[in-house]
Amino acid sequence: MSVKITEKSQVQNLILDKYDYFLFDCDGVLWLGDHLLPSIGEALDYLKQQNKTVIFVTNNSTKSRTDYLSKFNKMGISNITKSEIFGSSFASAVYVEKILKLPKDKKVWVLGEEGIEKELHELGYSTVGGTDPKLVKEGVKFDPNTTLFDNLDPNVGCVVCGLTFNINYLKLSLTMQYLLKDNKSIPFIATNIDSTFPMKGKLLIGAGSIIETVAYASGRQPDAICGKPNQSMMNSIKAQLPGLEKNPKKGLMIGDRLNTDMKFGRDGGLDTMLVLTGIETESNVKQLSKEDAPTYYIEKLGDIYEFTH
Amino acid sequence: MSVKITEKSQVQNLILDKYDYFLFDCDGVLWLGDHLLPSIGEALDYLKQQNKTVIFVTNNSTKSRTDYLSKFNKMGISNITKSEIFGSSFASAVYVEKILKLPKDKKVWVLGEEGIEKELHELGYSTVGGTDPKLVKEGVKFDPNTTLFDNLDPNVGCVVCGLTFNINYLKLSLTMQYLLKDNKSIPFIATNIDSTFPMKGKLLIGAGSIIETVAYASGRQPDAICGKPNQSMMNSIKAQLPGLEKNPKKGLMIGDRLNTDMKFGRDGGLDTMLVLTGIETESNVKQLSKEDAPTYYIEKLGDIYEFTH
Repeated sequence: MSVKITEKSQVQNLILDKYDYFLFDCDGVLWLGDHLLPSIGEALDYLKQQNKTVIFVTNNSTKSRTDYLSKFNKMGISNITKSEIFGSSFASAVYVEKILKLPKDKKVWVLGEEGIEKELHELGYSTVGGTDPKLVKEGVKFDPNTTLFDNLDPNVGCVVCGLTFNINYLKLSLTMQYLLKDNKSIPFIATNIDSTFPMKGKLLIGAGSIIETVAYASGRQPDAICGKPNQSMMNSIKAQLPGLEKNPKKGLMIGDRLNTDMKFGRDGGLDTMLVLTGIETESNVKQLSKEDAPTYYIEKLGDIYEFTH
Repeated sequence: MSVKITEKSQVQNLILDKYDYFLFDCDGVLWLGDHLLPSIGEALDYLKQQNKTVIFVTNNSTKSRTDYLSKFNKMGISNITKSEIFGSSFASAVYVEKILKLPKDKKVWVLGEEGIEKELHELGYSTVGGTDPKLVKEGVKFDPNTTLFDNLDPNVGCVVCGLTFNINYLKLSLTMQYLLKDNKSIPFIATNIDSTFPMKGKLLIGAGSIIETVAYASGRQPDAICGKPNQSMMNSIKAQLPGLEKNPKKGLMIGDRLNTDMKFGRDGGLDTMLVLTGIETESNVKQLSKEDAPTYYIEKLGDIYEFTH
């Protein structure tokens, strides 16, 4: 059974005294869309003052790490560095470079937003598809006579798919062509497979649901899934934090989703804490079996600060 | 093993002498997009001259039966009546009325094109979503602050999803809201679940792939699938043709897809004939097991006429 954190002594004894590494999901934990949750800046400062290492782990691939840094700053949280941020767009770009070892003269077809493009560009890859304005313009009214299908880029060596708010029939059908091309041999990478995307109190279509379309259409499943709960992102984080790698139990993964955040932490050998500011409810938590239950849960992350001040 | 029809005597002895009811798939059999295949008009005339009953069965829900009639006429095939056409949009509308028995003061949320809307309107239902220009306009650039999510129509009593060339993030996310609404109790009807849509020699995204998105996002599967190979469409056809109902072996289903057309015919107890003008190849046919093999296959439907004249 999960322990609910409700008072100062628990924060001190169960959290601060036990963990050196704090991994955070962002949406639903730090903020909801553009709305910062209460006492977040204070809680992060408080952890940093005590020399805790903080890492932000997000499956939202629409932003790059640089974009996230701007978002933190815009919200008044300024003492964060790029190296503390791990997004699924970054994880996907790293996967393409380090695991697939895609030569830099090969291009990546992107079904997704700028975040994926920027991270790939930082590593020296050219991208096609993605936010190309031509695909938005031509996609508003699909024209079956478009010449775009006759001019597939022969240099595309990988397809990366993630969340996009600018989905259209043209982009989906072009993505499908690359997935079918060369006897389905071009690697198919998913940034993450969250079925839903919480935004402004609504539950919208998630990356995983968009990826289902091109997966079903091409008769393929992604060759790799880079976001939480997949451990490739955890392994990148551990590679950067040898202390966590050596002793995962010094790390606490904090998130709002059981099937991504809590599983991500647990599979990586970390303890876990669920916040109730996102999509899970207290009654859900209480019904969980021992294997699925997070180590702790707390109403909101800011309570770490509020309970102690 | 399937018998290949290659000459006049086979057409006479194996086809014309044996069958009274000819069911045809349209795309890939009669035409490819807007391009009529050779000798189709002649073949249909030839069958009608011999008092054969012809029925056109299509999973393309973007058109209504009336639209199909116009298409036949535009291509110079004028001796077809509306009652000879069964589309998945019509089948879905009939399902909503006859099986779901949705009251006429309830509305239907449509993810799809005009074909679905028109067939529902003919039966007296109001539709929301679908081709509403507001959803196209607002959908070009998704605005998370849209008020559309706060104004879900309380009278929606059914969701019908099919192929749409005007897919966008707003439409998908709104469809998801209705699928989640009222504890996921609003019936979820799929016109058909073809993964791909062949058009102008290209393989594009099919209805089934679009439906996968909202199914995955909502954690639901369609409550009913109305198109081929589902037998609800076959049952409607048989209800109209008592002779076929009594003796399905007097019927021949002709199509270009093994997993929809041929299965549809076989499951309905009819014999089957595959044409090679669509997505299947001769080498595919030759590799099929006895249970999966069509009764016959033929290069193109027009050969029925060409071999005999």
